[in-house]
Amino acid sequence: MKNRNLYLDMKPVEEAKEIFLSALPLADLKKSEVIFSREATGRVTAEAVFAKFSSPMFNASAMDGIAVVSAHTYQASTTHPVVLRESVDFIPVDTGDPIHPPYDAVIMAEDTVETPEGIRIVDSIGPWENIRPVGEDIVAGEMILTGYHQIRPVDVGVLLSAGITEVSVLKKPSVAIFPTGTEIIEPTDQPVEGSILESNSRMFESMVNEQGGIGVRYPILKDDYNTIRDAVKEAVRRHDMVIVNAGSSAGREDFTVHVLRELGQVLVHGVAIKPGKPVILAIVEGKPVIGLPGYPVSAYVGFINFVSPVLSEMSEVPQANQPVINAIMTRRLISSLKHKEYVRVKVGEVGGRVVAAPLTRGAGAAMSLVRADGFCIIEQNSEGVEAGETVPVLLTGDPAAIPRTLVVIGSHDMMLDILADMMPVHYKNMHLSSTHVGSLGGLAALHRGETHLAPIHLLDESTGRYNIDFIKNNFKEPMALIKGVGRIQGIIVKRGNPLHVSSIEDLRGLRFVNRQRGAGTRMLLDFELKRRHIGPDEIQGYDFEATTHMAVAALVAGDGADAGLGILAAANAMNLDFVPVGQEEYDFALPAVYLDLPHVKAFIELLKSDEFRKKMETLGGYSFKSIGEVQLF
Amino acid sequence: MKNRNLYLDMKPVEEAKEIFLSALPLADLKKSEVIFSREATGRVTAEAVFAKFSSPMFNASAMDGIAVVSAHTYQASTTHPVVLRESVDFIPVDTGDPIHPPYDAVIMAEDTVETPEGIRIVDSIGPWENIRPVGEDIVAGEMILTGYHQIRPVDVGVLLSAGITEVSVLKKPSVAIFPTGTEIIEPTDQPVEGSILESNSRMFESMVNEQGGIGVRYPILKDDYNTIRDAVKEAVRRHDMVIVNAGSSAGREDFTVHVLRELGQVLVHGVAIKPGKPVILAIVEGKPVIGLPGYPVSAYVGFINFVSPVLSEMSEVPQANQPVINAIMTRRLISSLKHKEYVRVKVGEVGGRVVAAPLTRGAGAAMSLVRADGFCIIEQNSEGVEAGETVPVLLTGDPAAIPRTLVVIGSHDMMLDILADMMPVHYKNMHLSSTHVGSLGGLAALHRGETHLAPIHLLDESTGRYNIDFIKNNFKEPMALIKGVGRIQGIIVKRGNPLHVSSIEDLRGLRFVNRQRGAGTRMLLDFELKRRHIGPDEIQGYDFEATTHMAVAALVAGDGADAGLGILAAANAMNLDFVPVGQEEYDFALPAVYLDLPHVKAFIELLKSDEFRKKMETLGGYSFKSIGEVQLF
Repeated sequence: MKNRNLYLDMKPVEEAKEIFLSALPLADLKKSEVIFSREATGRVTAEAVFAKFSSPMFNASAMDGIAVVSAHTYQASTTHPVVLRESVDFIPVDTGDPIHPPYDAVIMAEDTVETPEGIRIVDSIGPWENIRPVGEDIVAGEMILTGYHQIRPVDVGVLLSAGITEVSVLKKPSVAIFPTGTEIIEPTDQPVEGSILESNSRMFESMVNEQGGIGVRYPILKDDYNTIRDAVKEAVRRHDMVIVNAGSSAGREDFTVHVLRELGQVLVHGVAIKPGKPVILAIVEGKPVIGLPGYPVSAYVGFINFVSPVLSEMSEVPQANQPVINAIMTRRLISSLKHKEYVRVKVGEVGGRVVAAPLTRGAGAAMSLVRADGFCIIEQNSEGVEAGETVPVLLTGDPAAIPRTLVVIGSHDMMLDILADMMPVHYKNMHLSSTHVGSLGGLAALHRGETHLAPIHLLDESTGRYNIDFIKNNFKEPMALIKGVGRIQGIIVKRGNPLHVSSIEDLRGLRFVNRQRGAGTRMLLDFELKRRHIGPDEIQGYDFEATTHMAVAALVAGDGADAGLGILAAANAMNLDFVPVGQEEYDFALPAVYLDLPHVKAFIELLKSDEFRKKMETLGGYSFKSIGEVQLF
Repeated sequence: MKNRNLYLDMKPVEEAKEIFLSALPLADLKKSEVIFSREATGRVTAEAVFAKFSSPMFNASAMDGIAVVSAHTYQASTTHPVVLRESVDFIPVDTGDPIHPPYDAVIMAEDTVETPEGIRIVDSIGPWENIRPVGEDIVAGEMILTGYHQIRPVDVGVLLSAGITEVSVLKKPSVAIFPTGTEIIEPTDQPVEGSILESNSRMFESMVNEQGGIGVRYPILKDDYNTIRDAVKEAVRRHDMVIVNAGSSAGREDFTVHVLRELGQVLVHGVAIKPGKPVILAIVEGKPVIGLPGYPVSAYVGFINFVSPVLSEMSEVPQANQPVINAIMTRRLISSLKHKEYVRVKVGEVGGRVVAAPLTRGAGAAMSLVRADGFCIIEQNSEGVEAGETVPVLLTGDPAAIPRTLVVIGSHDMMLDILADMMPVHYKNMHLSSTHVGSLGGLAALHRGETHLAPIHLLDESTGRYNIDFIKNNFKEPMALIKGVGRIQGIIVKRGNPLHVSSIEDLRGLRFVNRQRGAGTRMLLDFELKRRHIGPDEIQGYDFEATTHMAVAALVAGDGADAGLGILAAANAMNLDFVPVGQEEYDFALPAVYLDLPHVKAFIELLKSDEFRKKMETLGGYSFKSIGEVQLF
C-alpha cells in the first residue's frame, strides 16, 4: 500500500486554467511557416496580408456586349435609334476584357440589335457604365486579411486574386501523446484477462487535430518511472506540448506527477471537476505537459477543459463554438459542492418542449459520450438541478437534428438499434434515439413528456394481457399502442447448460443476474417466482442488476453470473444457451396525437418493411403477427 | 455577334435543385472503403458497426483499493472495526484490475487503515460494489454506431474500446474542377494586360473538401469546344462529379452548355438567383456535372446552392449548419421578383441591437465575401426589405464574435486596417470591423444606431474647424470625439507628375476621379472648387466615384484617371506622386455612453500605443499631436 499520492490538491476549474495559462510562455510557443495559399484553408495567418496586385488589374468590361464611346450614344432613344459602326463607335467585348480609350462604357448584348449597317441602340449610356475600374474589388497594397485570421475558402480565393500565392501562417502545434499503463494493450493485439484496449490516445489525436494542432501518438509506455521520465524528457524537446495518459491519479503505480516534479514544475494536481479530477498541469522546459485521467469520460472532460484552451491559445484556432440551448431537466440531479460536474444528457423535442434526460454518470461509460446529445454543466457552487428546471445544455451535436429525432425511452430490444440504423437511410435527416430504462421507466417518461414512444412489455397479472391495461389505467389523455413483436423470454445460461437449468425453480442456488426495477423482464421473474412461492431472498444475485438483455448475456458469458432472464436474441448474440420461459408482447405506447408526427409515421413504415423483418429474423426468437398495427385507447 | 446563348431558362432555385437531385442516381454514387478506425474522424460509416469485444472485458475494479469478500465485512462499523487479512479476506487492487471469486466487492483505499495485523475497516460493503461488471460500458455484439454516422473523436475511442480497428466508411466523392477561359492565368504566372488570375478553382477545392469530398483541380482549359469536351468526357470516367468554371453564361465563347448537351443531359441552364444566374446542372454518364459562373461571388453562391447539397447527398456529410440570427436591416433594399438574392451584410451589436448593413451587391466583389458576416437572403417572391425591418441573416462567421466586435462605419483610412489587425492580437477575442461610406455616411450610421464609432474629417466652412461643429449640430444626446490623426490631403498624380499638376486649378482638362457623395475628401474638393469659382461641370470625371483613397490611387496608377484627391499614404502605397492641398483632422465620433465599452477602451489604448504610431509613420503623411484624447459635447 505504499507510494499512493492520496492527497490531491483540488483546484476549481477556472482557477486551475488561469494558473496554467498565465504561467505558460504563450508568445514563445507560437511559430510561423510559409505555405501555398491554395492549401491554406483552416490555417491561421501569422501576420496581416497585403494585396500584391489589384483586381481587376485593368479597367475591364463587366458584361458581354460592346465597348462604346459614350459620347457617341448620347442621341440614342427609342424614337431616334443610333447605329454604331464596329471599330469606329464600338468593339465587341466579353466580360473581363480590358477597355481602352476612346471606349469608355459597355452596352450589354441584350440591349443591342445587329443590322447590316452596324449595331443599333435605342438608349444612351454614361461614361464608366458597365466597366469595372482597376482595383474595384482589391487594391494593390491594401490589407486583405488581418493577422491571426483563420483562412476560409473565400479567403483563399481573394489571396490568389490579389496575387498572393504563398502566405505566412502559424505552425500547427505538435502534441506528443503518451498512453501509459502496464495493463494497456494495442487494440490490434490479442487481449488476455486483465487487458484494457488502448483507445483514449486516438480520441486525443483527433481532438488535437480538430483544435489546430498535430497529434503525434507514441507507443504505449509501461508503468515505470524511468521509462516515463525519459520519454517525456525527449518529447518536450521535439514537440510543443505533451499529454500523458494516464497515471495522473493516486494509485500505487501513478508515476506521472513524480516524473513531472523532477523534470519541471507541477502547477496543478487535481481539479474540482467530475468526472476528470486527477488532472496534472505542468510546465517542462517552457512547454505545457498535461496529465489526464484514464477513464474515457474523465479523459474527454479533462481534455476539453485544459488541453483545448491551451491549444487554442497556441494555434489561434478558435475553440469550436458549441451551441448552448435551454432544456427542461426531466429528473432531479444532486451534485456536490466539491466539484463542477459534466452530466451527459439526451436531448429531445417532445410535445413542443425541449427536454434533457441525464445518462449514466459513470466515468467509464464511453458509450454514454457517444449516445449523449450534450452536457448539462452543474457549477461547483450549485447543489444540483430540480426536475422541471430549465437548464442550459452545451450541445455536442447539431441543434437542427433535435426536432427531427424520434425519442424512444423504455424497455430495451435490439430492434431499436436496427430501426435507429434504418431511419436516416430511408428518411433523410430523420433520427431515432433510444434510452433504456425498462418498461415502467418508459411509461413514467411518457407521463413526464420526455419521450414520443415508450417500448413496453408489461403483463397484467389479473387479466393475463400484455401492455393494454397499463396504458388504460395510467393515462387520462387519448393513447395509442403500436404493436411490435412477440418475443420469447427465457433463462440465459452458459453454452452447453453445464448447471442443467430447466426452469425457474432451478435458479435457486445459482449466481443470478437480475434486471433493474421497472423492467418488464424483472416483473416477469417476480410473477414466475410468486406463483411458485419462491422468495427473492432465495435467489442469489436478485439485487445484482443489469440494464439490458445484452448486459445480462455478457455477464453470463464472462462468468459474472450463472444465469439471467432475457431474450433469445441476446443469448444467440453471445453464443449462449437459452431455456424458454414464455412468449411476451413488446409494443410501443404513445399519446395518440403523436401518430401524426412525420417521424412516428416513418417509424411505423419501417416496422412494416421487409428489410426490417429480414434483419430481425436473423436474430431469432421473434414473431411478427400484428407488427405496425395501431390500437387506440 | 454569333454564338451567343441569349435565352437562359430561369428556374427558381428550389425547383432547379429538386429537378437535379431527383434525376441523379444517388444510390449508385455512394461507394464504401475500409479504413483504420484511428483515422476515421470526420468520415461517415457505410453501415452499422457492432462491438467485437465487451468493455470491460472482465469484471474489473472501479477503484484503487482492496478487493474483499463482501460477506467478511458485514460486521464492520465504527464501534466494531473489522481487520481483514491479506490474501484471505482481501487482496490489493488498482483501478481496472480483474476481480475473481471469492472476492466480490472493492473497498476504496481512502476507507482503509493499515495496521500491523492487516487492513482495518469501519463499514460493511455489499456484493458488486465498486466493481464494473463485464460489458458495463459496451457489450460484444451490440450496435455501437449506426450507418451514415459522421465519426467524431469520441466515436473513435469507442470503436477501439470495442476492438474495432478497421471500419467501413463511405468513400469521399472525387470532384474534378476545371477552370476554363483563354484570359485566365495561373496566379503564379506573370500577368499581362487582360489577364485574370485564376482563383475560383482553389476556393471550390477547399469547399469540396469541407463538404466531405476530394477536390481535384485540373490545369486551366482554353475556351475551345473540343478541349472542354474531351476533358469533361475523361473526367466523368475518373471522378464522381465534375465542376466547370466558367463558360456557363451566354457569351460568344461560353461553350460549356453545348459540350454538356453533346455529352449528356442538361437539366437546368440558368437559375433565378442573384448573383449566380448562369448555372448549368447536367448529368453525364450518371454523374453530376455542374457549370458555375466566373464572377467570384456568383461562383460562391452557385456552389453553396447546387454543389454543396449534391455533395452532401453523396458523402452523407451534413451541410454545415450555419446559424441564422435576426438583425435589423439598416437600409432599404430593393430586390427584383425575378430572382432570389443573396445580399452580403456586415452584422454588429450596437447599443443592444443587432444590426445588418448591406455591402456592395456586385458579383465581382470577392472582398465583400471576405468582409461579410453573413447573407440576408431575399426570397424570389419578395420585392425587398425596408430600413428598420427585422430580417434573418445567415451567418458565415462565429455568432459569439458579434458582441465582441467594435463597429466602425465612416470615412476610410488605412489606420483602420492596422487597428483591425492589432486588436485581436492585443485583446483576446476582440475584433474591429470597418465599412467605408464616407464621413457623412458615418454620421448617418451613428444616427441610425448602426455603428459604435464614425471616423470623420469634416471641415465646417463657417468656423474653419474640423468635425466638432458637425457633432454639436447633429446630435441631441451627449457625444464624444476621440482625436485621431492629422492627415495631409492632396492631388494624387502619376509618377513624375507628367501633366505638371500644381494646384486645384490644374484639374480642369484632366481626367479626374472623384470620391463618393458624403466623403470628407469630396467635401474638401467642393470647398476648394467653390472658393476658386470653378463649377463641377468643368472637372471631367466629377461624377466618376471611387470609395477609398486606395481605389483613387489605383485608378491613377492604372491610367483610369489622370488625378484624384486623396492622402499621401495612398499615393506612397501605389508609388505615385502627390501635390499637397492641406492638412485635415481625422477623428472618431461616438455617443459618450460608448466610452465605457471594453472594445472602445481597447481602441483608445491601441491609438496611444507606440506600436501603432510606428506602423503609421512608415505610411507617411500623418501627425499625432492629440491622438487618443477624448473631447465631450
